[in-house]
Parts: sequence; C-alpha cells; structure tokens
Amino acid sequence: MPQTVSPSALNAITQDIAFTTPLVLKSGAVLGEYSLRVETYGTLNAAKSNAILVCHALNASHHVAGVDASGDTGWWDNMIGPGKPVDTNVFFVVGVNNLGSCFGSTGPAHTHPATSQRWGKDFPVVTVEDWVASQARLANHLGIEKWAAVMGGSLGGMQAMGWAMQYPDRLAHCVVVASCAKLSAQNIAFNDVARQAILKDPDYALGQVPRSGLAVARMIGHITYLSDDDMAEKFGRDLKNEALQFNFGTDKGSADFQVESYLRHQGEKFANYFDANTYLLITKALDYFDPAGAHGGDLAAALSVAQADFFVTSFTTDWRFSPARSREIVAALIKTCKHVTYCEIDAPHGHDAFLLDDARYHSAMRAYFKRIAATFEA
Amino acid sequence: MPQTVSPSALNAITQDIAFTTPLVLKSGAVLGEYSLRVETYGTLNAAKSNAILVCHALNASHHVAGVDASGDTGWWDNMIGPGKPVDTNVFFVVGVNNLGSCFGSTGPAHTHPATSQRWGKDFPVVTVEDWVASQARLANHLGIEKWAAVMGGSLGGMQAMGWAMQYPDRLAHCVVVASCAKLSAQNIAFNDVARQAILKDPDYALGQVPRSGLAVARMIGHITYLSDDDMAEKFGRDLKNEALQFNFGTDKGSADFQVESYLRHQGEKFANYFDANTYLLITKALDYFDPAGAHGGDLAAALSVAQADFFVTSFTTDWRFSPARSREIVAALIKTCKHVTYCEIDAPHGHDAFLLDDARYHSAMRAYFKRIAATFEA
Repeated sequence: MPQTVSPSALNAITQDIAFTTPLVLKSGAVLGEYSLRVETYGTLNAAKSNAILVCHALNASHHVAGVDASGDTGWWDNMIGPGKPVDTNVFFVVGVNNLGSCFGSTGPAHTHPATSQRWGKDFPVVTVEDWVASQARLANHLGIEKWAAVMGGSLGGMQAMGWAMQYPDRLAHCVVVASCAKLSAQNIAFNDVARQAILKDPDYALGQVPRSGLAVARMIGHITYLSDDDMAEKFGRDLKNEALQFNFGTDKGSADFQVESYLRHQGEKFANYFDANTYLLITKALDYFDPAGAHGGDLAAALSVAQADFFVTSFTTDWRFSPARSREIVAALIKTCKHVTYCEIDAPHGHDAFLLDDARYHSAMRAYFKRIAATFEA
Repeated sequence: MPQTVSPSALNAITQDIAFTTPLVLKSGAVLGEYSLRVETYGTLNAAKSNAILVCHALNASHHVAGVDASGDTGWWDNMIGPGKPVDTNVFFVVGVNNLGSCFGSTGPAHTHPATSQRWGKDFPVVTVEDWVASQARLANHLGIEKWAAVMGGSLGGMQAMGWAMQYPDRLAHCVVVASCAKLSAQNIAFNDVARQAILKDPDYALGQVPRSGLAVARMIGHITYLSDDDMAEKFGRDLKNEALQFNFGTDKGSADFQVESYLRHQGEKFANYFDANTYLLITKALDYFDPAGAHGGDLAAALSVAQADFFVTSFTTDWRFSPARSREIVAALIKTCKHVTYCEIDAPHGHDAFLLDDARYHSAMRAYFKRIAATFEA
C-alpha cells in the first residue's frame, strides 16, 4: 500500500509493513511471514523518545484518529490528535492492527502462503503475548527502542500490560484503561456464547459468512458494553411502533421495543463488515490472557518485572471490566512497589465509557500525558 | 389424563382441566378451547380458605413439589411439601402449567382445533394478564373463591402481582419473590438476543427443532441467572482439559474452560426438552408485563386496587431482577397504603437463589406462611 500523507496537522500515514522472520506463536504454531497495517500521527522526534503505541480492542483497528479515505473517523479520535489529551503535536502516535484482525494486518481473510487459499478457519490462534511480540518487531522496524507509553482500553489495556511484562525496558509508561488482568468466568461465558452463535450457524461450516451468528454475537457483546442505567436512559421501554406487535420477527422495523431495534441494527451492521474468524480469534485471546496464571495466580509476581510507570483508569458503571478488576491491578502493582496512578471515573456509560468524551476522564489523561511529555521535553 | 394419587403425605394429584368458554387474549386473539395441567398437594379444607396458587417462571411447570412418575423432583420442592416453609399438611397447594408452555397445558406443541395441525408458531402471544385470567377460571373450577395466597418467583411473581390487580378480592396474600414490576431495557435486550438466536436458526423456519438457537438462548439466559461471584466460585478459570486447546469447537468436551463446558451442556440439555415457540412466547410475556404502563408509569396507581397483603423478597446478588427492582414494588405499595413485608436476602447465588434452599430465605417464608395459616386456623 502506498504511503498516504494527510494535509492536516494530524499528519496521518498508513503503511503495511512486511515481516519475513517467522513468528512462533504461544500455541506453537508458526506464522512464516505476515504484515502489519499501521497508521501514525505526528512526528517522531530526533531522540525517538516521543512515541506512543495505541493497542486496540475487539473490533477496532490501526485507524485510531482522524478521518480516513473512506470518511471513517478513528475509534479514539476524541483522545488522540492535535491539542487532544494525547497531543499529536507533541507525540508520535502509532496505531497498529492486530494479527488475525480483518482490517489490513495478516488475518483469516488473507491468503495462506503455503496453500494459496484463504486462511479462513485455519488461521492460528493468536494471544495477547503474540500480539505484543509482533508489535515489538514493529517497534524495531520503526527504530523505536523505548515507547514513551504503550496505551490501550479493554483488550488494548491487556496488550499494554503485556508489554510491561514481556519487554520491561521498552516502555516508560503503561496506560491501562477499562481493562483487567484476566477474564472472569462470566466474561468467558459471554464470549463463548457469542462464539457458539457463530460456530453453530450452518453458514460457518459452509465457508459462507455466518451473518446470523455474527449478528447474535454482536448483540450479546453490545449488551455487555453498555450499563443497565445507560440502556434505561437511551431506550427505556420505548416502543419502536405505535403499539405492541404481538408477534415475532428478526427485522428491526417490526421490533416491539426500541432497544430490540437498536441491537438488531447493530448486529446486522456488524455482520456486514466483521470477519467471523477474527471474532473467534480475538475473543479467544481475551479468554487466554492471564499473566498471573504462570505465577500461581500471583499477579504481583507477574508484574514484578515491570519497569514502567502505570496509569490505570476504570469507570464506575462498567460491569464488563468493573473498577474492582482495575483495583486488583493497582493493588498488585503497589504490592510489588511500582509507580501507579489510579483514576476511577464516575461515568454512566458502562464499558464503552473508555471510548467516549468524558471531561473528567479526558482531563486526567491529558494531565498524565503532559507529565510524560515533560520527561522528554525537559 | 387419569388422576394419580401419590401415597406420600404430599398427596400429589395431576389433572388436565378442559375449558370450553373462549378466552379473549390481550392481543385480541381468541383461544376457543384449552386445557390446563395442574398438580395439587395437600387437602382443601371445608372452608376452602387454605389454597395457595404457585405460578411458574420461564421453564418450569405445574410439577412444583414431590417426585413425579418420570422421577423428576418438582422445581420448588425445597419450599413446598409436608413440614416445608409452605406446609402441605396445612395448605392445599396448586401448581399450574401456563398456557403456551410445553409441559401439558395447551401450547404450541398441541393441535390447533380449527386446522388439526400443530399450533407451532401460530400459537397466539399470551401475556401475564392472560395467564392470570386463565388461572381465575381454574380457581372457579376448583371452587376456590379466594386464595390464601398467590405466590411465585421471577415471572411467577409477576403473575402474583397480576392477580392482586386483576382480581383484588380473590387473594388474601400476594407473595412476590425475585421479581420486578417491568423489565428494564437490558432485560428486554437479553430476551431479544435469545429470541433472535432461535428465529435466525434455519431449522426454525423449516419447522424443525432449532437446536442451535435453543442452546444459545439457554446459554445467554443461564448467564443472567447466576451471579458473577457465583460463577467465579463454581468455575473460576478452571480448565476443562489439561491444557488450553488453541482451537474452536461446539462440543463440551473440547472446551477450554469448565464454564464453557457447563454452559454448552446446559444449552444441549435445554434443546432436548424445551419447545422453541414456548421460549419465544414466555420471554415475550416477560417483556410485555408493565402494569404501571396504563397509569402513566405510576406503579402505585396500578397497585392501588390491590386488597392483598404483600410479601416481597429479593436477593442481593440477583442482577437480573436486582433488589432495587423489588424496592420499587415495595415503595409503590407503601405509597398506596398497602400492607407489605419486605425481605432482602444476602445470598451469593444470583437470580437462581429463589429456587435454592437458603436458611434465611426459607425461614422468612416459613414465618410468613405461618402468619397466613393463623388467619384460617384461628
């Protein structure tokens, strides 16, 4: 893909970077060659000390900020850009699409070099650790020895923590938003129901797009991203039509309640753009992340190798990864004598709050990134 | 069906009772004739003042207590029986299967009298109000002018409330456990995702059993019945096999985590015995229940006609119908000057707690039913 330079102050550049050294995955499988799609913003300084890596969650991508050629705004555009909390006039910001995703980096929709067929369901299971390893090679390629910060929300926060444990001397700050150190049984349960919806859709076995399964999976996921209060506020028991329908349907127009219509719409939309195998892979990576597992469940022991300073943020109404889960991370960091700043934001929007423009949240992030900037601007 | 008399003190009798007066449903549809399957325990006293009606929730039935001919124990057997909190040596207890269910009363699996075909997806949508109306005819048939109590958990509690509003002078006590006065947007959302899983299963359109859809629906439901803590306690992140599988499957043996295996098993089991159309109907009845809706959202106004005394119980870790939802009912009852006793039980088992043998819960129920017994034993 040719480099494209945006005329805006964001100075967005999209690239596909090829890697030919085989990557041995946690499963033992080997990716012989692969490419990562990245988008960068701002300018890397001469000392290469102002670089920020942004890791994405389930259905996001390298397109973090600005408006791309398709007119799509980046998923964290309110956080990252000129004059924004993570200021691209100060920082060189790198967004990267994860291996196994469906937005440009090597994944199930790409061609298997050995068979010249689509990878499809044969794409190997990738883990948070594998992503971090692939991102370390990206850092090498970009000439970045040490990130000023690695940051991410939800699954992205797991990757940031992964960096702090796998490459302790390669990041100065680790920014973990709305995340957790491992999924709970309930978290895994929701992921598995979503996967079952896809796997049990007959179209999946036929190699067709399992549209029904993807839609149901997305509906389940979406419920867990919003708070009960937020759903009550947005939809309540508002009807879609003038009266109750007294029948059953799948189209959004015939729904009884607005909340049904909204979720069916989200499901349909998702089935139009997201790859089913990517959904399976990414939810599995979430399930498998458990750095304390190798230390008898002792998270402090797992984090003891970290050298970064940590900034951990959670949101009061997030019931997917509740504040208690962030406090576990903070407690473990304190136990092993790390520098950690913790911010619990009173916000009504559930897990999705990490993507929204909340004044207290953004001002805390802004302050923390000013502190980071001071370390290399001095 | 012939009457069967158990030799035990429970004195269980199962009957199918036919009704030939057409029942006009809330939707406007008419059920020309129908039958209700009931199971009764204990003995109706001469004054017919000791009768208790037990209303069931989603997947339960008239088989409330004791062991039936198939060896199945009733769903509320720990609560109802000789010497139990609802003592069948004192009370005459009636369990009734709801219209539209799949355990004996007229429902989708029965024959449509006009077409001589299976009702299937043509069975009319039934509401809580319709069930209560059908149960009032059952009371007439049994010669019970006034129930000592109508009781139920979850959807069963909605029917008990329905009785208090539709037939205020026909029950002395209304016992509402782990219920709510209307579903929230999140509650409706979970129900609709489950319905979509069934409706989008190609086997449903073909008139076959949509096993995949039923399994996914049950898995979703099951997650909402358990508390996060309870799942953590029961399953944590325990593996099903010795190591992570690094692949994807639908059978329970190949699951990575025990919680996945458990839920897949529950899903398969459910698909073997539950009727898909019944699932659609019963979740829709849940969604539609909203007695305050006809009073501009004022629940106290809706409840003002009630004459019964109320006993309302909730469980701290129930996140399907949380204690806050029970407190709304209690507040509305107090506002309209009704007698109400409220009990919030500190229990770890989520929504399912209402079915379990918790000492504090059962002792509160026992005390309340002793109080009821005192009114007719005096």
